[in-house]
Amino acid sequence: MSAAKGTEVTLQLGFVGLGRMGLNMVHRMQDAGVECVVFDTNPEARAAAAATGAQAADSLQAMVGMLKGPRAVWLMLPTAVVDKVLDGLVPLLGAGDMVIDGGNSHYVEDLRRAKALAGKKIMYVDVGVSGGVWGRERGYCQMIGGPEEAYRHLEPAFAALAPGVATAPRSPGREGTPSPAEQGYLYCGPNGAGHFVKMVHNGIEYGLMAAYAEGLNILHHANVGRQQQEVDAETTPLEHPDRYQYDFPLGDVVEVWRRGSVIGSWLLDLTAIEMNRDATLAHYAGRVSDSGEGRWTALAAIEEGVPAPVLTSALFGRFASRGNDEFADKVMSAMRHAFGGHDEKAADDKA
Amino acid sequence: MSAAKGTEVTLQLGFVGLGRMGLNMVHRMQDAGVECVVFDTNPEARAAAAATGAQAADSLQAMVGMLKGPRAVWLMLPTAVVDKVLDGLVPLLGAGDMVIDGGNSHYVEDLRRAKALAGKKIMYVDVGVSGGVWGRERGYCQMIGGPEEAYRHLEPAFAALAPGVATAPRSPGREGTPSPAEQGYLYCGPNGAGHFVKMVHNGIEYGLMAAYAEGLNILHHANVGRQQQEVDAETTPLEHPDRYQYDFPLGDVVEVWRRGSVIGSWLLDLTAIEMNRDATLAHYAGRVSDSGEGRWTALAAIEEGVPAPVLTSALFGRFASRGNDEFADKVMSAMRHAFGGHDEKAADDKA
Amino acid sequence: MSAAKGTEVTLQLGFVGLGRMGLNMVHRMQDAGVECVVFDTNPEARAAAAATGAQAADSLQAMVGMLKGPRAVWLMLPTAVVDKVLDGLVPLLGAGDMVIDGGNSHYVEDLRRAKALAGKKIMYVDVGVSGGVWGRERGYCQMIGGPEEAYRHLEPAFAALAPGVATAPRSPGREGTPSPAEQGYLYCGPNGAGHFVKMVHNGIEYGLMAAYAEGLNILHHANVGRQQQEVDAETTPLEHPDRYQYDFPLGDVVEVWRRGSVIGSWLLDLTAIEMNRDATLAHYAGRVSDSGEGRWTALAAIEEGVPAPVLTSALFGRFASRGNDEFADKVMSAMRHAFGGHDEKAADDKA
Amino acid sequence: MSAAKGTEVTLQLGFVGLGRMGLNMVHRMQDAGVECVVFDTNPEARAAAAATGAQAADSLQAMVGMLKGPRAVWLMLPTAVVDKVLDGLVPLLGAGDMVIDGGNSHYVEDLRRAKALAGKKIMYVDVGVSGGVWGRERGYCQMIGGPEEAYRHLEPAFAALAPGVATAPRSPGREGTPSPAEQGYLYCGPNGAGHFVKMVHNGIEYGLMAAYAEGLNILHHANVGRQQQEVDAETTPLEHPDRYQYDFPLGDVVEVWRRGSVIGSWLLDLTAIEMNRDATLAHYAGRVSDSGEGRWTALAAIEEGVPAPVLTSALFGRFASRGNDEFADKVMSAMRHAFGGHDEKAADDKA
Repeated sequence: MSAAKGTEVTLQLGFVGLGRMGLNMVHRMQDAGVECVVFDTNPEARAAAAATGAQAADSLQAMVGMLKGPRAVWLMLPTAVVDKVLDGLVPLLGAGDMVIDGGNSHYVEDLRRAKALAGKKIMYVDVGVSGGVWGRERGYCQMIGGPEEAYRHLEPAFAALAPGVATAPRSPGREGTPSPAEQGYLYCGPNGAGHFVKMVHNGIEYGLMAAYAEGLNILHHANVGRQQQEVDAETTPLEHPDRYQYDFPLGDVVEVWRRGSVIGSWLLDLTAIEMNRDATLAHYAGRVSDSGEGRWTALAAIEEGVPAPVLTSALFGRFASRGNDEFADKVMSAMRHAFGGHDEKAADDKA
Repeated sequence: MSAAKGTEVTLQLGFVGLGRMGLNMVHRMQDAGVECVVFDTNPEARAAAAATGAQAADSLQAMVGMLKGPRAVWLMLPTAVVDKVLDGLVPLLGAGDMVIDGGNSHYVEDLRRAKALAGKKIMYVDVGVSGGVWGRERGYCQMIGGPEEAYRHLEPAFAALAPGVATAPRSPGREGTPSPAEQGYLYCGPNGAGHFVKMVHNGIEYGLMAAYAEGLNILHHANVGRQQQEVDAETTPLEHPDRYQYDFPLGDVVEVWRRGSVIGSWLLDLTAIEMNRDATLAHYAGRVSDSGEGRWTALAAIEEGVPAPVLTSALFGRFASRGNDEFADKVMSAMRHAFGGHDEKAADDKA
Repeated sequence: MSAAKGTEVTLQLGFVGLGRMGLNMVHRMQDAGVECVVFDTNPEARAAAAATGAQAADSLQAMVGMLKGPRAVWLMLPTAVVDKVLDGLVPLLGAGDMVIDGGNSHYVEDLRRAKALAGKKIMYVDVGVSGGVWGRERGYCQMIGGPEEAYRHLEPAFAALAPGVATAPRSPGREGTPSPAEQGYLYCGPNGAGHFVKMVHNGIEYGLMAAYAEGLNILHHANVGRQQQEVDAETTPLEHPDRYQYDFPLGDVVEVWRRGSVIGSWLLDLTAIEMNRDATLAHYAGRVSDSGEGRWTALAAIEEGVPAPVLTSALFGRFASRGNDEFADKVMSAMRHAFGGHDEKAADDKA
Repeated sequence: MSAAKGTEVTLQLGFVGLGRMGLNMVHRMQDAGVECVVFDTNPEARAAAAATGAQAADSLQAMVGMLKGPRAVWLMLPTAVVDKVLDGLVPLLGAGDMVIDGGNSHYVEDLRRAKALAGKKIMYVDVGVSGGVWGRERGYCQMIGGPEEAYRHLEPAFAALAPGVATAPRSPGREGTPSPAEQGYLYCGPNGAGHFVKMVHNGIEYGLMAAYAEGLNILHHANVGRQQQEVDAETTPLEHPDRYQYDFPLGDVVEVWRRGSVIGSWLLDLTAIEMNRDATLAHYAGRVSDSGEGRWTALAAIEEGVPAPVLTSALFGRFASRGNDEFADKVMSAMRHAFGGHDEKAADDKA
């Protein structure tokens, strides 16, 4: 499963946070010979980790006590609780130890934390991890920031988690021993670099998703020419109804794009899986959450003075999917009423 | 009321279409001495026009019969019926006569019609008219395309409808006899030019409206820091709730911007009127129609190869206000479910 | 000039920062009977202020010494130096005194400063001021945040600076004594509220400017049908060259829109002035700066979770006007080369 | 190479247009047993086709003469010449014959042509073909519209060109004999359906490309904190220069994203190849062409009333990359000068 499998690995790692993603990561590392000493407040999660050979501790303190120096503790936690766990963990650590934040922290938090820990000679490492619920099988793409010394110490863990070079064809010109980037992990630079690259990765993800979604929506509406058109001043008449008479088999369309086309991707593979189940997507309401990185990417673009209209449009589309454009729309309706006497049409079908 | 008032005007005009806008235009022209011979299928509208001195005819044929040559007939009709009325009207006219389309036709239709009428030596004039329900009082801004000969013949009507130079301060450097542009009407070029300029005018209008609407929406949500935040992986935590604790008096905000600020405008004046009635705009649902020109402006930009992200975003916002983004949003929810196991939150509050 | 003129005003104000805007504001206040004690590091600016009756001090300390309690000091400074001046000023002030920041500070800075000054019982007031170089003549639109007590004390200054109710028609329903909002100044709420509203005001301004600019650009390119088209796979052929044959008189177009149209505004008035000088705008290169508020508005929208595609597109257009999209464009060229063997066309004509 | 290889194929096909793409397609079909009778005005291209077994004709007439009934002729030509070739070809064909347009025609052209040919009982088939210069090796994704009877007759050719099911993992739930969609070709519906789906495919491609490009541009500028900041009113000061101190190894970043991440795709594979050669992309100028489908996708979205902000932003970014935003930028500079006295900065560095 892992490219590193079979090589002799002696790394030992504390691991805190055994949610769906953390637990899979521990399994993958254990399979590759990385010794994990795990802690989670949930005893069932601890038991699940132990089942693949990890040592389970029932407190942070116990976990740290089971680690040999230099100690390295990987946190895989919701962003909002990282600082609280650090408050309990850091006093248990000492000079030369390492803390890894593998969650989705804003890189600005990394800068702050790394500075604080440096005062205690503890090294802080930020790792952006992509792979979702598929990672145990596919491996995890990892973007790493922090002191190079820590990166080198932890490299067996990164290699164990990574998909390995065989999971994609090598780029022409890349020969010989595969570089870490080709195996699926990359040292990106000093602290914050890992989460910065992961943040932009997710920003791109928002854009890709919206591109497919908009395209499929255009195909979905390609039968508007069949619908009855109202003839009044509030409705733009469709100039060419004969051009919009198509009922496309969307589930097959996303399937056919998976092979040989320019827009093939893993996101498209997933869309095909979903649409193969139900091409109408009727069980979704279309209320799209966002979880931070898309916003941070937009903020970074703005602070850098760099245009990012596609990524930002994708983000705004999510905000609008949750109804946050409603007051703006009311303002426009009010203006139209004021200058043209236009009354809203069929207001109730929006409510 | 009109700048042209008091000057001796001998122009006679046939006028078809006495809706809210057409009737007001007839009144304004009659006040300024332009003789209108009117027709509308609605007898009450004809009677209303007659009340200010217009001659009312009870058929197109009768109307044309009451006109002296060269005959000029101004159509003020919904776009969708212009061609049908032309079918009845054109056979009644002859070489040297003029037809004016003052509605919101796509300029591409003008090109077609002008060519067809030129074959009969009838001159076609396209006039984009802005002013809405306020035009009788404020005057009408007119953008004119077609043969210059026809423009010159009709100029007294344009001048009568125009607001007149006194309605805005003259631009420095514009001295002496006010130009037509300064009075509020402009010969823009050959056929289609009038409706092309009007089309872009409305495209700009979409952009302006959306700019105010977005800004007011940001102010409207400036109290989000007070709202309870859910702590889960589906919700981006508000990083600085203390920064979003404001309840702005929006009705007063739009009022204060009307004097001395850089963003003062007539649209803002109208917004202030609406918000002074009810700053919550609770009686609007936010379902914003679009009536053609915004779309055509975007199409023209695309055909010209010219970027128009602001005007097009404004247009797309209207489409989304009517729910046409729903399937795209479902696609994104499906993708998020597929790669991250994310379930939608509180789907029913969108329905 | 001011609505407050003639009323008995006894307010005395320290005023720091006599740049183009500050000096005009002092003049306007002096004209209205507000006593200004001014300081600027530039002796010529001090002399200019003294010419209309202001008392000039040659140091911050001297200025404060000339003020009666409760002392109020208005800062009109570049954002970047406000904190430095405060460092010198605050030790000279005491409980019950007031500091007003009338510059373009981010409202987040206001929150920080207000908190720090509250510890010394000094009241901090943030005022967003719009009016530009025209303010002395037109008056200044003011958006005010901070303790209400300070607002009331300073109201004569706000009234003196404001344009006054007569500068725009009153909104229907607004009767009797004009409210402050109708005169052109508004108490918006606690600290930060003034600069927040001003920030959004400027965000809207970006959107309005871009809407006009895009529309005029579409008109500017309406003659593309006349240009020779290259026939190759890299160039989309113009499908309807006959529809793009117009040479619009842009200077007259912006002039005609000023009267009677829906898109009339002060920004349009200014555009007409500029284009009347030279409708080709040949002396501009199109490198558009941004000075903070547009960015902050976008950031606020994103933090609030509110879509702002128009305002953000306008901001990104400015970034792109300065070439900051270049690397992104190179990435797309590289991709097109990679999948389709497309070579860039005429690369040098972009350089 | 082809999924259809080895199966007995008796289809014979006329093929016109042996450019880079057409020639590869002929090779791939010949390899799979489809008999191609080819014509191109270029004798060298004909010779190249003959080298893999195709029969070469030296005129359209000769080619048609070598075909058995029902005759099927596949055109692989630049959009702009399809109609001219049809003018020569159609008189040579008769009832029951078929014409296939495999180029990038607008589906609206298909509707017109299909109607015209139906009058002669000739069947018209529109096929959107994706695959670029890689198609001979990877196979071609094909989206097909037209009479089902013709589709069925031609299916061996589609199967020969398609990549085959083995080129991507099958979607869970798709079992048994692979459907055509899984092999890489799809009957999408009546005429126009093929090119409609291909058009949207390319629209999505524009969005995907821009998403990657914007993200990489944000990474590229992540060192802005190191640059000297000018302190003046025309430059927004970077609030947190310490947060933008990164020099990311972009070539490795795109490589690492190829394995295990959510944003893996074929476009990313290609970007990695390009950046592996030169991560600075210095040999590209960033002048990005567009070749029709992106525009048509935007037009379709607008006519359908469906929001497509991401796809349209991507299109507009290309227009701007070619300098077509210049006049709009000048308008904004002029406005800023007019209201604020702002002079442009360093105008010459844009020129």
